[in-house]
Amino acid sequence: MSDVAVAEVGLFDRAWKRVSLLWRDMAASVGSPTADASWEGRMRACLEARGGEVSARARAAGLAQSYQTAPEAVDKLAFFQALAGFDSDFKAVEAAMGAVSAAQDTASRAAAKAKLRQALEPPRLKLLTQFTTIPDGMKFLVDMRADLMLLMGHDPMLQALERDMRGLLANWFDLGFLELRRIDWSSPAALLEKLVGYEAVHKIRTWRDLKNRLDSDRRCYAFFHPRMPEEPLIFVEVALVQGLSGSVQKLLDEKAPVLDPRMADTAIFYSINNCQRGLDGISFGNSLIKRVVTLLAEELRGLKTFSTLSPIPGFRRWLEEQKDAPDLLTEEEAKSLTEAAGTPDGNAAIALVLAARRPLALPWIGKAEPVLTRLCARYLVLETGKDGRRARDPVGHFHLSNGARVERVNWRGDTSEKGLKESLGFMVNYLYDPAKIEEYHEGYVGEGSRPATTALRRLARGSR
Amino acid sequence: MSDVAVAEVGLFDRAWKRVSLLWRDMAASVGSPTADASWEGRMRACLEARGGEVSARARAAGLAQSYQTAPEAVDKLAFFQALAGFDSDFKAVEAAMGAVSAAQDTASRAAAKAKLRQALEPPRLKLLTQFTTIPDGMKFLVDMRADLMLLMGHDPMLQALERDMRGLLANWFDLGFLELRRIDWSSPAALLEKLVGYEAVHKIRTWRDLKNRLDSDRRCYAFFHPRMPEEPLIFVEVALVQGLSGSVQKLLDEKAPVLDPRMADTAIFYSINNCQRGLDGISFGNSLIKRVVTLLAEELRGLKTFSTLSPIPGFRRWLEEQKDAPDLLTEEEAKSLTEAAGTPDGNAAIALVLAARRPLALPWIGKAEPVLTRLCARYLVLETGKDGRRARDPVGHFHLSNGARVERVNWRGDTSEKGLKESLGFMVNYLYDPAKIEEYHEGYVGEGSRPATTALRRLARGSR
Amino acid sequence: MSDVAVAEVGLFDRAWKRVSLLWRDMAASVGSPTADASWEGRMRACLEARGGEVSARARAAGLAQSYQTAPEAVDKLAFFQALAGFDSDFKAVEAAMGAVSAAQDTASRAAAKAKLRQALEPPRLKLLTQFTTIPDGMKFLVDMRADLMLLMGHDPMLQALERDMRGLLANWFDLGFLELRRIDWSSPAALLEKLVGYEAVHKIRTWRDLKNRLDSDRRCYAFFHPRMPEEPLIFVEVALVQGLSGSVQKLLDEKAPVLDPRMADTAIFYSINNCQRGLDGISFGNSLIKRVVTLLAEELRGLKTFSTLSPIPGFRRWLEEQKDAPDLLTEEEAKSLTEAAGTPDGNAAIALVLAARRPLALPWIGKAEPVLTRLCARYLVLETGKDGRRARDPVGHFHLSNGARVERVNWRGDTSEKGLKESLGFMVNYLYDPAKIEEYHEGYVGEGSRPATTALRRLARGSR
Amino acid sequence: MSDVAVAEVGLFDRAWKRVSLLWRDMAASVGSPTADASWEGRMRACLEARGGEVSARARAAGLAQSYQTAPEAVDKLAFFQALAGFDSDFKAVEAAMGAVSAAQDTASRAAAKAKLRQALEPPRLKLLTQFTTIPDGMKFLVDMRADLMLLMGHDPMLQALERDMRGLLANWFDLGFLELRRIDWSSPAALLEKLVGYEAVHKIRTWRDLKNRLDSDRRCYAFFHPRMPEEPLIFVEVALVQGLSGSVQKLLDEKAPVLDPRMADTAIFYSINNCQRGLDGISFGNSLIKRVVTLLAEELRGLKTFSTLSPIPGFRRWLEEQKDAPDLLTEEEAKSLTEAAGTPDGNAAIALVLAARRPLALPWIGKAEPVLTRLCARYLVLETGKDGRRARDPVGHFHLSNGARVERVNWRGDTSEKGLKESLGFMVNYLYDPAKIEEYHEGYVGEGSRPATTALRRLARGSR
Repeated sequence: MSDVAVAEVGLFDRAWKRVSLLWRDMAASVGSPTADASWEGRMRACLEARGGEVSARARAAGLAQSYQTAPEAVDKLAFFQALAGFDSDFKAVEAAMGAVSAAQDTASRAAAKAKLRQALEPPRLKLLTQFTTIPDGMKFLVDMRADLMLLMGHDPMLQALERDMRGLLANWFDLGFLELRRIDWSSPAALLEKLVGYEAVHKIRTWRDLKNRLDSDRRCYAFFHPRMPEEPLIFVEVALVQGLSGSVQKLLDEKAPVLDPRMADTAIFYSINNCQRGLDGISFGNSLIKRVVTLLAEELRGLKTFSTLSPIPGFRRWLEEQKDAPDLLTEEEAKSLTEAAGTPDGNAAIALVLAARRPLALPWIGKAEPVLTRLCARYLVLETGKDGRRARDPVGHFHLSNGARVERVNWRGDTSEKGLKESLGFMVNYLYDPAKIEEYHEGYVGEGSRPATTALRRLARGSR
Repeated sequence: MSDVAVAEVGLFDRAWKRVSLLWRDMAASVGSPTADASWEGRMRACLEARGGEVSARARAAGLAQSYQTAPEAVDKLAFFQALAGFDSDFKAVEAAMGAVSAAQDTASRAAAKAKLRQALEPPRLKLLTQFTTIPDGMKFLVDMRADLMLLMGHDPMLQALERDMRGLLANWFDLGFLELRRIDWSSPAALLEKLVGYEAVHKIRTWRDLKNRLDSDRRCYAFFHPRMPEEPLIFVEVALVQGLSGSVQKLLDEKAPVLDPRMADTAIFYSINNCQRGLDGISFGNSLIKRVVTLLAEELRGLKTFSTLSPIPGFRRWLEEQKDAPDLLTEEEAKSLTEAAGTPDGNAAIALVLAARRPLALPWIGKAEPVLTRLCARYLVLETGKDGRRARDPVGHFHLSNGARVERVNWRGDTSEKGLKESLGFMVNYLYDPAKIEEYHEGYVGEGSRPATTALRRLARGSR
Repeated sequence: MSDVAVAEVGLFDRAWKRVSLLWRDMAASVGSPTADASWEGRMRACLEARGGEVSARARAAGLAQSYQTAPEAVDKLAFFQALAGFDSDFKAVEAAMGAVSAAQDTASRAAAKAKLRQALEPPRLKLLTQFTTIPDGMKFLVDMRADLMLLMGHDPMLQALERDMRGLLANWFDLGFLELRRIDWSSPAALLEKLVGYEAVHKIRTWRDLKNRLDSDRRCYAFFHPRMPEEPLIFVEVALVQGLSGSVQKLLDEKAPVLDPRMADTAIFYSINNCQRGLDGISFGNSLIKRVVTLLAEELRGLKTFSTLSPIPGFRRWLEEQKDAPDLLTEEEAKSLTEAAGTPDGNAAIALVLAARRPLALPWIGKAEPVLTRLCARYLVLETGKDGRRARDPVGHFHLSNGARVERVNWRGDTSEKGLKESLGFMVNYLYDPAKIEEYHEGYVGEGSRPATTALRRLARGSR
Repeated sequence: MSDVAVAEVGLFDRAWKRVSLLWRDMAASVGSPTADASWEGRMRACLEARGGEVSARARAAGLAQSYQTAPEAVDKLAFFQALAGFDSDFKAVEAAMGAVSAAQDTASRAAAKAKLRQALEPPRLKLLTQFTTIPDGMKFLVDMRADLMLLMGHDPMLQALERDMRGLLANWFDLGFLELRRIDWSSPAALLEKLVGYEAVHKIRTWRDLKNRLDSDRRCYAFFHPRMPEEPLIFVEVALVQGLSGSVQKLLDEKAPVLDPRMADTAIFYSINNCQRGLDGISFGNSLIKRVVTLLAEELRGLKTFSTLSPIPGFRRWLEEQKDAPDLLTEEEAKSLTEAAGTPDGNAAIALVLAARRPLALPWIGKAEPVLTRLCARYLVLETGKDGRRARDPVGHFHLSNGARVERVNWRGDTSEKGLKESLGFMVNYLYDPAKIEEYHEGYVGEGSRPATTALRRLARGSR
C-alpha cells in the first residue's frame, strides 16, 4: 500500500494519504507480493502495466523506494544488471535489419529504418520514464545515473544502460527547459546551504563569506529544472569591478569596500560549478555564461568587459613534465635564475620552485616571476593535449570552445594552498567579447587556432 | 538580427532587445545570408552549429520564424520535406547492422545494438530539439506536428518525421512533467477564453454559461506543461450533485440552484477535451480522471460515487446499419412499435425515428423508449468494433480501458440537436469504482470482458 | 460557535473549522446568549472584551454576520443608532475641557489637550476596529459606510458616526497602503467582471468590448488595498495613440486596427472610475493619474503627451440655463443660426438644438458647430460654480485641481445617447504636462486661474 | 530632485529614476530651497501641500531622508521638537469647547464634540501620514518612534507627539492587518539573519543552532505587516515533543534526535520575541500564541497540550529582597539548610545561594532544591507587584493575562549563565488550555485570581 501512497504524491501529498483508503483494493492488489519479488520480477510487473498505466507507475514508485533504501552497493548493482537486461528483442531487431537491407528506394528505406529504430528501443527506457512521476523523480533519476557511473565499470550492458539514461536526461534537461534564476541573500537558506556544498573552485568558508559573495556588487546565477526546482544544476559567481581583476583573494576579501554596481565597467566570472554528477556530459556552462553576459549587459549599462578569472589546474603538472626540456629556458633566463637562486643551472632553479610547498615564500621568487609568467603564457596559448589540437589546460579548453580568448596572465592570482600547488599561484583571464565569440569559437573548434592578445602571444613565443 | 532577438528572449524579453546592440556583430554574422538560403541550407547551418550551440539556436529561431510566417501550406510542406531529408546516414547504419550481426555474445551484442541505435538517430531530431529554446518553442513544436499530420499524407519520409516528433513530444509530455491545475472564475480571462475554444463536447455558448460551469458546485481541472504554461493540454468538467445525473441539459441549466458542494455525494465528469491536436496519440485522459477523483475524494468527504455522463457518438450510426437486421427487435417489441407508429413493422418504426430531425417530437416516441433503451444497452455492452473485441463506441472504449464500467443508460440525456443526431438523445454513465478499476481494466484489456451492472447486462441481452 | 469559526478564519479557513471542536468550550461561552441580545447589548459585550481581545473579536465577527444578514434597512438603521450611542463620556470630556482651560503654559496645555482628545475618542471606534479581523473585514467596513451614508439623513449622531468611519478608513486607505496593479486580459475573470460593473463613464457592453479595452495598445491600471486584494478601488483606462484623440467612439471601435504601442506618442486617459461608494471623500484619482503617467513614460519612451478625453457632464444643463441670456450669442452668430435653422432669432435656434433629442441629426447642425464650440470653450474656461471660483464643470474641476490644463474641445467627441444628452456630443481633452503640473495646480487652487491653450482662451472670450 | 526620486519609488524604483528627467521642472521647484530651510520651515511646506498632495509627499520624502541622515541625536531632537510644535490651534479649540458646553441636547452635543475632536487633531498627524508613501515608509515611522521614545524624556510636548505616533501605528498595525507566516529553513537567508538578531530569550549562537530550531520537529511563526514585508514584528519558537519539557538546554540540543512531528503530543512555546522597539505598547503576543495554537492543532491532530517553557526573570531579585523576611523559611527548612550549608542560620544559607555565581556548583545545592522550588512556586502563584494585584513576574503577568495557568516549576530548567543569574536556573511552564482560556483570563483580569495546578498552589502556600 505504501507504494501507492508514494506513487502520485507530488503536490497532492495529503490528498493521497487519505484517499489511499478509498483506493484500498487497488492498492492491495498492487502491493500484494507478485509471483516474483526479485528486481527483475518487479521490473517486469511495471512494464506489463497490469491494471493500467497509473497502477504501473505506482509499482515503479515502490521499486524506486526499494532502490533508494537498498543497503549495499551490491544491491544497486543487481538492480542495474536486472534493468540492463530489459534490452530490445534480438529476433525483432534481426527481422527489422533484414527489412532495411531489402528496401530498394529511399522512401521504403526510411520507413524500414524507422521500424528498426523502434525495434531497437529497449524496454528499460519505458521503466525509466515511469520514474518521472514519483515525487522528486527527476532528482532520483539523476542520482541513479551518478550511482550507475560509479558502479558500471567496463560492463558493456551497464554502459549501454548508462547511455540510455544519458539520452533520456539530455532530452529532459535540454536548454529549452532550464530556468535561469538569480541567487542572492534573499534566497532560501536551504538553497544557499546547497551552494556551499557545491562550490568546488573557491570553497565557501563561512556564512559571512557566502553573504559577501552575494553582496550588491556580486551576482550569482544558476540554471534550474522545473522538475527539480530546489536543486541548482550549475551556477556561476560574478564580481562587478573596475578593470580586470587579477587576484581571487582580493575579490573574496570580506573587508573590501562594496562598489556601487552602476560604477562597474567589468564583470568577472570567477567561479562556475556543476552541481549534479548525474548530469555529467550534458553541458550547460557555455549557455549559462552567455545568458548571464546578456542579462548583466542589460541591467548595468556601464559594463563593457566580460571576463573570467580562472584557475590553471594543469600548469604545475605540465611544468614538472617540462623541467628537463632543453629549450624550456633561454640562456639569459637560465643565467638570471641561477644567480638568483644560487643553484648551478636554470632548470634546477625551476625544479626548486616546483618542489617548494610555498613558492611565494622563496626570497628570490620575484626574480623568477618573468620566467614563470612567460611559461604560463606558453602553456595556455601554445601547448596542446594528446590530440595535438585542443588546449592542454581543461579550463582553457572549455572557455576557448565557448569563443573566449586568453587575455591576461596574473602572477599571485590565487595564493591559496590549492592555487600554489596547481599553478604556482597563477590565474588567467579569459575574455568574452560578444563581437568575436562566433569567430573565435569557429577558429578554435575548426582550425585549432588559439585567440589571445598580441602581447600574450608574443610572450608565449618568446623563447622559440 | 531579428533571429537573435527572438532566439533566447524567453523571460528576458526586454533584456535581449537592448543587448542585441551589444551582440550586433554576432547577430550580423548569424543573420547574414548564408551561401544557401533554402530550407535545406538553413537547416544544415543549424545542424553544423557554426559559432557554437548558442549561435545555432539563434539560427534555429530564425528558421522557426520563417516557418511560422510561411504564406502557404506548400511552403510548409517543403519545410517538412527538407527536414525529413536529414535522416540517418545509410552507410553508417549498414556498418552498424553488420556489427550487430557479427556480435557473438550478449554483451558485445548489447554494445553493437547501442551503436546501431545511435547510427539510426536522424540528425533532424537535433534540429527539432533546438526549437525548444525559442519563446513558446514547445507550443511551436506541438503546432508543427499538427501541421505535419495534416500535410504528410502517405509519404513514408514524412511519416517517419512525424514518428520522430511524436517520440520527442511523448518524452517531453510524459505524465511526470504535467501539472494539474484547477480552473475557476478567478483564472485569467485569456485562459478561460481558450477553454471556450477547446470545449467540443458541450459547446460553451456564453460567458454566463462558462461562469455557471465554474460555480461552487462545479469543478474544472486541466493538465499543463511547464513550458506551455498558458495552454491547457486536456481538461475535464465535473458537476457535484446528489445521485447520478442523467441529463446534461439539467447539469448546464444556468438557472438551476447551486448545491452546497459539501452536500454532494456524486461527482459527474460530463466533459473531457483534448486541446492540442499536435499531441494526438499521447494520452492524458486516463491519468487526469484518476488524479481528479483522488483530489475530489480528499476535498469533499461526502463524495461516494464518481461517474461520467458521456455521449454515445456511434449509437445512431450503428442503429442505422442494424435497422434491417431480422433479430433487431423481439416479436413483442415489433408488435408494440407497429401499433404505436402505425407502420407495417417495428423495424420500419425504428427507421422512422432515425429519419426524424427531432425524434423526441414524434408523438409515439414514448412507446419506443423501452425498445431504444434496450438497443442502446446492447450497443454499449455487447457490440464490438472491427477487431471483434473493443467496444464499438469510441468513448465507451476509452472509459472501459481506464477501468470504468457501464452503469446506466439515460433516455433524453442530451436533447441538443447534436445529441439527438448522434444518439437519439441517449447518454450513458460510466462509473469509476476505485476498488474495481484495476480488475475492470485487466478484464477489458486482457479478455475483452465488458463490465456493466447486472441490470444493464440483462437488458442488453434481452433479445437474444 | 459559528461566531468563533468566522472570527479568525482569514487564511486559515479550514484550520478553524476543525479546531473549533478543540476550542468548543470557549466557543460555547462566547456564543452563549448574553443577558442582552439587542444590538446595544452585543456591542457592549464586544467593547468589554470579556475573555480577552481574541474573544471580543470573535463576538464582533458574530455581530458583523448579524448585520450582514439583517433583513431590512430599518434593522441596519437600528444598528447604526446603537453604535452611534457609544460616544465619548460627557463628564470626562467636561473635566478634560476644564483642565485645558486651566493650563497656563504651552507644555501643560499640550498635555491637557492630548488628554482631552483621548477623552473625546468615542468607544465605537474600538468596535469598528475589531471588525478588521474578520475575513473580508475591510470590505465589510467600506460597505457599511456606504450603507450608513444612505441611511443617515440629517441625524447628527449618525453623521458623527459617519465622520468616525471616514477617519478610520482614510487612515487605512492612505496612499502609502495602496498597490498599483495593471489589469489586462490575463487578469482573473472575476476581477474583469467587476470592472464591467464599476465602469460608469463609458459602459462596457460585451466581453469583446472589454477585451478590446485591454488590447496591446490599451492599458488599464487600478489601485488595490492589501486587505481587499480582489476589489479595485479606482481604475483608469488608457489608450495609446498618435496625436490627441477627439472621439471616444473611435477609441472604443473594436474593429480599429491595433497600434504597436512603441509607435504611440500620446496616452489618452479616457475613463476613470471610483469603485467603492464607501470610500467617498477619500481621494485617489489625482495620485492614480500621476503614477500611471510615470509608469507609462518609463515603459514607452515614445510617449510625449499625456491627456484625458473627458466628458463635459454639465454643459447642456448650463446651456439651457443660459438660453435667454442677452449676451450669449454675438449678433452675427444669432443671424447665422437663425438663417440656418429657419427660426426667428438665434436664441430660439439654440433652444431648438437643446430640445433636439439627437442634435447631430439636424440638417443645419454643421452651421451651429462653431457657435456651440465657442460656448463649450466658454463653459469650460470661464464659467464658475456657486462659489464664483471653481470650474463649474465637476470633471473640469477635478482635473484642474490636479494640475491639468484645458487643451482642446472636440465636436462629435461622444455621439452616444448619453454624450448627446449631457454635452451635445462634445468632449474635452485635459492635458497633463509634467513640467507645469505644480504651477497649474497652484494657480487654480490658489487664485482660481484656469490654465488653457491660448486658442481656447481666445475662443472662450470671443463674445465678450 | 533626489527628493522626488525617493518619494514615490516603491515598486517602481527604476521607473521613477528615469522619469525624473521628464518631471524635471516639477522636481526642480520642489527641490528648490524654500524660503525657510529649517525643520519647521520644511514641515510647513509639506503641510501646506503647495503643488498638490503628490508634491507634498515628495517634500515629505526629502524631509525623511534628511532625518535619516541627521548626524547627531541633537538634530533628531530638534526635528521632534519642531514636529511637536505643529499642534492644534488653541483658539479653535477654545471656540469648539465653548460650543460643546453650550450644546443643550444629546444630538447637538454629539455634533459639537465631533467638531471639537476635529479642532484638536494636530497637524503633525498629517505630516506623519505623508511619510507612509516613501519606500519603507512604515519601517521609517516605526524606527522614528523608537528614536522618539529614547529622546523624549519628560517633555510634555514630545510625549504628546509620541502618543500621536502610537495612535497612528496602533491603527495601522491592528491585528486585522497582520499576516501570520511560518519561518523555516526555506525562508530567505536575509530574514533568518534578522531572527538571529532579534532573538533575545535564548540567543541563537550559530547557523547550525538556527537550523536546528527550524527542523521538522520545530516550528517558528511570525507576524508581518504588508507594508514591512521583510521585517518580522514578533515571532515565536515552538518545539514539538512528547510530554511537558522542563529544560531549555535539552530543547536546544543540536544532537538530540529529531522526533516525527506526528508522534508529538505537546507543543512547547519556548521563546517569544518582539522585534520592533518602535511598536512598544502595541501588543501582538496574545494573538500570535492563539493563532499558532489553532494552526498546530489543525496540522497535527496528535497535539493535546499547548504550553510554554518560560523564564522567570524576576525570581532572583525578589528572593534577594526577601532574604531577611522572617517567614520566608519554615523552621524545618531553615534547619535543614543550615546543616547542609554549614552556616549558622537558614536565611544566611539563602543569602549564600543568592551570592553564588553558579548555584548548581554548590555541593549541597540538592538539599536546597525543595526549598527553592517552594519559594519559586510562591513567587509565581502568590506574589504581586506594586498594585497588589498583578503577578509580580512580568512574563507571568503576560501569560496569565492571556488566559494561561501556571503548570509546573522546573529545577535546572535553564542552566545558562543568564538563567542561573535571573532565576537560579528555574523555568516554568504556563499551560494554554483552550477550554479554560476565557475563564482564566476573566478570573485574572477581573479578580486577580491566579490559576495554577492544585499541587503548585499547595506548594506555594506551604509556609503560610
